[in-house]
Amino acid sequence: MNQNEKVRVSVVGASGYTGFELVKILLRHPHVTISKLAVHQNPGVRFSELYPALKGLCDIVCSPIEASQICADSDVIFFGLPHTTGMAFMPDFLSAGKKVIDLSADYRLNSAELFQKTYGLAHTDAGHLSEFVYGLPEVNRAKIETTNAVANPGCFPTGIELALIPALKAGLIATNSIIADSKTGISGGGKTPKPAFHFPECNENVSAYKIACHQHEPEIEQELSKVAGTAVDILFVPHLVPLTRGIFNTIYAELRQPCESAEILRLYQEFYRDEPFVRIMDSETSPQIKNVAYTNFCDIGLKVVGRRLILLSAIDNLIKGAAGQAVQNMNIMLGRAETTGLL
Amino acid sequence: MNQNEKVRVSVVGASGYTGFELVKILLRHPHVTISKLAVHQNPGVRFSELYPALKGLCDIVCSPIEASQICADSDVIFFGLPHTTGMAFMPDFLSAGKKVIDLSADYRLNSAELFQKTYGLAHTDAGHLSEFVYGLPEVNRAKIETTNAVANPGCFPTGIELALIPALKAGLIATNSIIADSKTGISGGGKTPKPAFHFPECNENVSAYKIACHQHEPEIEQELSKVAGTAVDILFVPHLVPLTRGIFNTIYAELRQPCESAEILRLYQEFYRDEPFVRIMDSETSPQIKNVAYTNFCDIGLKVVGRRLILLSAIDNLIKGAAGQAVQNMNIMLGRAETTGLL
Amino acid sequence: MNQNEKVRVSVVGASGYTGFELVKILLRHPHVTISKLAVHQNPGVRFSELYPALKGLCDIVCSPIEASQICADSDVIFFGLPHTTGMAFMPDFLSAGKKVIDLSADYRLNSAELFQKTYGLAHTDAGHLSEFVYGLPEVNRAKIETTNAVANPGCFPTGIELALIPALKAGLIATNSIIADSKTGISGGGKTPKPAFHFPECNENVSAYKIACHQHEPEIEQELSKVAGTAVDILFVPHLVPLTRGIFNTIYAELRQPCESAEILRLYQEFYRDEPFVRIMDSETSPQIKNVAYTNFCDIGLKVVGRRLILLSAIDNLIKGAAGQAVQNMNIMLGRAETTGLL
Amino acid sequence: MNQNEKVRVSVVGASGYTGFELVKILLRHPHVTISKLAVHQNPGVRFSELYPALKGLCDIVCSPIEASQICADSDVIFFGLPHTTGMAFMPDFLSAGKKVIDLSADYRLNSAELFQKTYGLAHTDAGHLSEFVYGLPEVNRAKIETTNAVANPGCFPTGIELALIPALKAGLIATNSIIADSKTGISGGGKTPKPAFHFPECNENVSAYKIACHQHEPEIEQELSKVAGTAVDILFVPHLVPLTRGIFNTIYAELRQPCESAEILRLYQEFYRDEPFVRIMDSETSPQIKNVAYTNFCDIGLKVVGRRLILLSAIDNLIKGAAGQAVQNMNIMLGRAETTGLL
Repeated sequence: MNQNEKVRVSVVGASGYTGFELVKILLRHPHVTISKLAVHQNPGVRFSELYPALKGLCDIVCSPIEASQICADSDVIFFGLPHTTGMAFMPDFLSAGKKVIDLSADYRLNSAELFQKTYGLAHTDAGHLSEFVYGLPEVNRAKIETTNAVANPGCFPTGIELALIPALKAGLIATNSIIADSKTGISGGGKTPKPAFHFPECNENVSAYKIACHQHEPEIEQELSKVAGTAVDILFVPHLVPLTRGIFNTIYAELRQPCESAEILRLYQEFYRDEPFVRIMDSETSPQIKNVAYTNFCDIGLKVVGRRLILLSAIDNLIKGAAGQAVQNMNIMLGRAETTGLL
Repeated sequence: MNQNEKVRVSVVGASGYTGFELVKILLRHPHVTISKLAVHQNPGVRFSELYPALKGLCDIVCSPIEASQICADSDVIFFGLPHTTGMAFMPDFLSAGKKVIDLSADYRLNSAELFQKTYGLAHTDAGHLSEFVYGLPEVNRAKIETTNAVANPGCFPTGIELALIPALKAGLIATNSIIADSKTGISGGGKTPKPAFHFPECNENVSAYKIACHQHEPEIEQELSKVAGTAVDILFVPHLVPLTRGIFNTIYAELRQPCESAEILRLYQEFYRDEPFVRIMDSETSPQIKNVAYTNFCDIGLKVVGRRLILLSAIDNLIKGAAGQAVQNMNIMLGRAETTGLL
Repeated sequence: MNQNEKVRVSVVGASGYTGFELVKILLRHPHVTISKLAVHQNPGVRFSELYPALKGLCDIVCSPIEASQICADSDVIFFGLPHTTGMAFMPDFLSAGKKVIDLSADYRLNSAELFQKTYGLAHTDAGHLSEFVYGLPEVNRAKIETTNAVANPGCFPTGIELALIPALKAGLIATNSIIADSKTGISGGGKTPKPAFHFPECNENVSAYKIACHQHEPEIEQELSKVAGTAVDILFVPHLVPLTRGIFNTIYAELRQPCESAEILRLYQEFYRDEPFVRIMDSETSPQIKNVAYTNFCDIGLKVVGRRLILLSAIDNLIKGAAGQAVQNMNIMLGRAETTGLL
Repeated sequence: MNQNEKVRVSVVGASGYTGFELVKILLRHPHVTISKLAVHQNPGVRFSELYPALKGLCDIVCSPIEASQICADSDVIFFGLPHTTGMAFMPDFLSAGKKVIDLSADYRLNSAELFQKTYGLAHTDAGHLSEFVYGLPEVNRAKIETTNAVANPGCFPTGIELALIPALKAGLIATNSIIADSKTGISGGGKTPKPAFHFPECNENVSAYKIACHQHEPEIEQELSKVAGTAVDILFVPHLVPLTRGIFNTIYAELRQPCESAEILRLYQEFYRDEPFVRIMDSETSPQIKNVAYTNFCDIGLKVVGRRLILLSAIDNLIKGAAGQAVQNMNIMLGRAETTGLL
């Protein structure tokens, strides 16, 4: 592809919140043109009717989800439908030679057995599982550069993995001691109205949910185990808090040997020195969701307390936790500057 | 009924937000016992399963909605299902001699024609329309004392009517000049999840809706016309604001002759001097929703600006705008102290 | 005191949020009369000018804080000023034979050294430290019945201690393994405007603060150590979440031997069977702040995951975490029904 | 200035919310470089210490506010300090030949008398009042192109004026009949913590303030009178609603002769056809704050009801109501594409 030519990009499942964020980023991206926005419900309406915020900016008429049409018109395909729906489409996209960034969870787990156990149904495209690269650029950049198939990480996994990876790589913490207590905004629950996300029910409220049984837990453990070189076992407890966007993770782990906060802060700053989207606090202070909202940043803080290391990370669940990271992956796949369209 | 005996009270349609508030008030009410909580969906579950806030406080098993059973077990029936559902039940309740407080809108409009025009279907119990007393105690206390049938006012009408009545009674304002700009919390939309009330959609948002076509407009005009002794025409524009409970009304009207704020404040203070649940600001300051939330109060402020009178009122839509006023009406119907259970 | 006579009650430091909640509860309490509301700033204004929500309900003119005057007019004194201010007044109140419920933190820690280390200044009334009973009725009811001096627990300690006490008493968990991850609403920060509580700063935000250095940590450890009969060491990380009222605690601890959720749930239900204000979930579900907001309840849930026990508790920080528990203590001290004014 | 050279831009009063938004926009703007961020308090700290969201993106060390230094380093100066502070600096900036965009209110009113009446002190630079162009590009684009001095409109005036101008220009409405009922988010109150903006005070609350005495009213009347060619008198009532960003205006006016919504919608669509930042609804639906938040758009809707026209407009108070419009003005002053950095 000529570097001056615009890349044709499609979004499948564009009507959800992730699709909306993708479109907003892609509209500002200098190297792409949006060729198709495919939706399940109501193809034929303008995208700006679904999202009046984009009136005049994206009046594309949404298409039905037809693989052949999408392939014909796209160089890169973002797939943004919910988990268990991606595996029906990926074989067609890949055999057509398209670059695919799958935001469903279907190709994140490396094992079809684990997928079935986690998502409750058999994987119908297990053959492609090994082809997909887990799209966390801070870990897999080199592989992302050369693949056509990226499995975009989940929102909780992104913030939790980025916080833990340097400590695990350096062997600082016991791999069976990790607890992740996460607080997520309501947009993480998607666009479909449900009782738990009804304003009078979740406003002025906090609760835990899917305690130690959230579908993101196996994904986190799989990726961290690779990094640690040994099985990592985490206890993951997500909480719903009354804000629209953002995830705040508080992670507790036991140090394998005594260490000071300042030392680990330096290690983290060094580890992420060249990363454009990971920022480490200067001292033992907390990151804050408001500092990363509407951005592709992951902010990380930490503090050693006795024998424990406390790690804190904050992301925008829809950007670094979904759409932004997907575009970051696309930039890498296309050999463009990684931050294009994201700052 | 012996004044020492507890009154048996039922709530039909107890599962909605108004039902929940009714139950909370009735639990603290010294003169009643809750005999039946009837629901459409899921009879057989404990009320505290629907509302875990009441675990240990109200573990009554919900009943199906069967008129004869409800009549057998109740002296007073609160009917809390949505508009157009009340008229199927009221004839049975009334012929059984029960005291009824209808929180649906079915018996608020005096004319079956107006009902049909407003709610889009024919009234099936038009014969009882004239029997129902409009349950605004500040206006109709004497009639409420002697009736068995009260039509409990809507949430918007309560706050708007209480703000306008003294001015209209005193002939201060032009009856065709009134604009009511109302701001309501999301609980006013009921308990059923809908896109407009999905947290990420209504949080950090404000919009107008049903502009000059809200079903409460005819109710307001009807009641104010009675008070004014001439046709009152209002322009009513409701807005959705991101909070759970409360309505704030800003009302604009033209003075028929020059007048000062202080003078009208005195008139209002005098008018509502003996009312336990209406409070008039001491000066030209604004009422605030937070001062009436979780109470049966309606706070009213006002200011004259040039030829116009600005009236401001605030209520809790679920209490003075629904459940609290309903209990206030019950207290009056039963000859008990009007504030019982409400302070 | 004659049981028919009303007890004269004063609130010192009435202008803060805790004072406001105290006044609201006391106004509904059948056995007391509010005799004095003493404030630092602006004595001479009506309480309803500070809190217009109470216009017509509490128009008492606030007094300056003068110990002799307060003693002269009170049988019971609630002290609601911030920590380090109580110790200047308690000697006078106690020597005058008054019943005192101290909501400042000054008499919660048993050791003057620990007080100095925690609050940064010397205790000026260390001699009375041993006289004060820690006012957690679920643990110290018998002592509260016979004391004149109650140190009302902090908001975080209340919810964390109630969640941990049964497990520690039963020896289920390792006393050095406990992590408490708490999420608090903004009213916990008090009534004085500060940058961290400015709406645009804390709305749509989450952050951790005072990580493992919050002044409530020694209080929690002291009280839990008594219960456990051995030193308990907890790691306490509070977080600020964008809601007005409520605390949600997520507590992680290691089981000393394998155990099932159901078994521990039964133990908790048994332990708190007769407690009017502690409710245990029926299954492995989460409590929710909305179910305890504006009440004196503490709701507790739990789940065993592998070798760990997860405990979840929710309270209203201003009620069970402050004003409500204070009135519960008063009821016990006065020999009245413990729930009076609180349901 | 060479079109390829970057314009040196300074922000005076950069520490407030408007300054923050300005910096974010300017960072993405391809034609400018930020040369100075001048602040009153704490010069010497990095801007990213004030706003950690910009860590790594804007680590400029803030300067003190010294006119000569600022002039030496700037081609364009944005002045973002509060009203009544701008007039001390503008003479220096202008005599140095700098292009100035004043976001304080000091040069919006054309008359020194009206300024004194509105802001309570004498104007010390009345001689420059006539030099400043009111920076509403939709009205004054041609003048902005050729001036060095722009008075950037207030947040309320922007949304109210854009909604009213086409109707007034077309002579559709009576100029003495206009009521503007506005709902603003809390960031409009600035960054300094105050009781009214303390989270527990403004969350779950709505109230009116500065009823018909807000300092923006004379500005609105002055600008609308110019457009209408006759004195326009408006009644302006602002309200505080619990969200961070955005203003929603509901405007009521009397039609001079009967007209239909569709007709006026067409007139508005025609009027703003070429405007990049004004969008007219397609039908009688309401604009929504969420569709303009974080953008420079003003969305406008309308509906005719009887003899009245209802106009609805929504903007982001910090973008189109302040920083975005300021950059829009700069683009015009520099002869660049007006939307640069703003889409």
